[in-house]
Amino acid sequence: MEALQQKIREEGIVLSDQVLKVDAFLNHQIDPALMQLIGDEFARLYADSGVTKIVTIEASGIAPAIMTGLKLGVPVLFARKHQSLTLTENLLTASVYSFTKQTENTVAISPRHLNSSDRVLVIDDFLANGKASQALISIIKQAGATVAGLGIVIEKSFQGGRAELDSQGYRVESLARVKSLAGGVVTFIE
Amino acid sequence: MEALQQKIREEGIVLSDQVLKVDAFLNHQIDPALMQLIGDEFARLYADSGVTKIVTIEASGIAPAIMTGLKLGVPVLFARKHQSLTLTENLLTASVYSFTKQTENTVAISPRHLNSSDRVLVIDDFLANGKASQALISIIKQAGATVAGLGIVIEKSFQGGRAELDSQGYRVESLARVKSLAGGVVTFIE
Repeated sequence: MEALQQKIREEGIVLSDQVLKVDAFLNHQIDPALMQLIGDEFARLYADSGVTKIVTIEASGIAPAIMTGLKLGVPVLFARKHQSLTLTENLLTASVYSFTKQTENTVAISPRHLNSSDRVLVIDDFLANGKASQALISIIKQAGATVAGLGIVIEKSFQGGRAELDSQGYRVESLARVKSLAGGVVTFIE
Repeated sequence: MEALQQKIREEGIVLSDQVLKVDAFLNHQIDPALMQLIGDEFARLYADSGVTKIVTIEASGIAPAIMTGLKLGVPVLFARKHQSLTLTENLLTASVYSFTKQTENTVAISPRHLNSSDRVLVIDDFLANGKASQALISIIKQAGATVAGLGIVIEKSFQGGRAELDSQGYRVESLARVKSLAGGVVTFIE
């Protein structure tokens, strides 16, 4: 997706060979018009997949997920990282290690909002080692629902998450595939 | 806003005289079409206020904020509750006590994305005791920016947050004003 690659080139900051900071338009400040383009593109790619629900994870997945849900006309469900007083039922949970934050979190979804008739599109801002995606897939399976595929805004292709999802047979659509951050320069898989 | 009040009546769950659970369309599962209506309404109310930026707080504020930002054509900045490896600059911070979660959090915004030329619309999902709103206002002032006003999806008018903001002279626009949750019934200020 050219508009996204251009934004990454112009406003992304390479912090190391492993870490790309996109706080200017995705992870802290959000560009709503770009999110709409992203949502439209995910909706186009999964238009014929029978998607009934989108699942993402707080917080940075919410903006692209909501724009995709708007276009596809389906609800968005976001996994929570911390238990809330108003989210007290028997929860579906999975453990996820955050590479960026170097912390282990339990993420949770209420089974009230996900069931075996759902075909789920997983949306997330980043795919690196795939820990968040695998946790969401685990929760979706616990609910008896089906994974229609994954929509990733930025994939760090040099880390192992994409290859693992491919080997598991999941459809993955990444709108920007970063081949390398070496030398402070972002290069993409075209 | 009638569509929102109807949704609260139909899908909101009164957990106590103090707590309204709206996990079906706002705080866990999100209804994108309703969020678009909400964003359009905030944009209409603040169309002539010279808003240059929207500030909200993760996670449930993001969906209504992004739809408002899309309509107004301005960026959305969300305060983070936990420090991230990629958010490492000198941060603007404030402390906020969450009534719902009964925890004290530090929320943070990077000064790179907020400055003295900004006129800020604060968007949040709930206004109860106003702790989150006051924390965001504190951060906006630290940046030298101006508060154009606040846009709240659901106000619990029987708690003190609204009255305090009124007394401080801020414009507050709440799309649903809950007068009472007594007896398990939601009644609104019309």
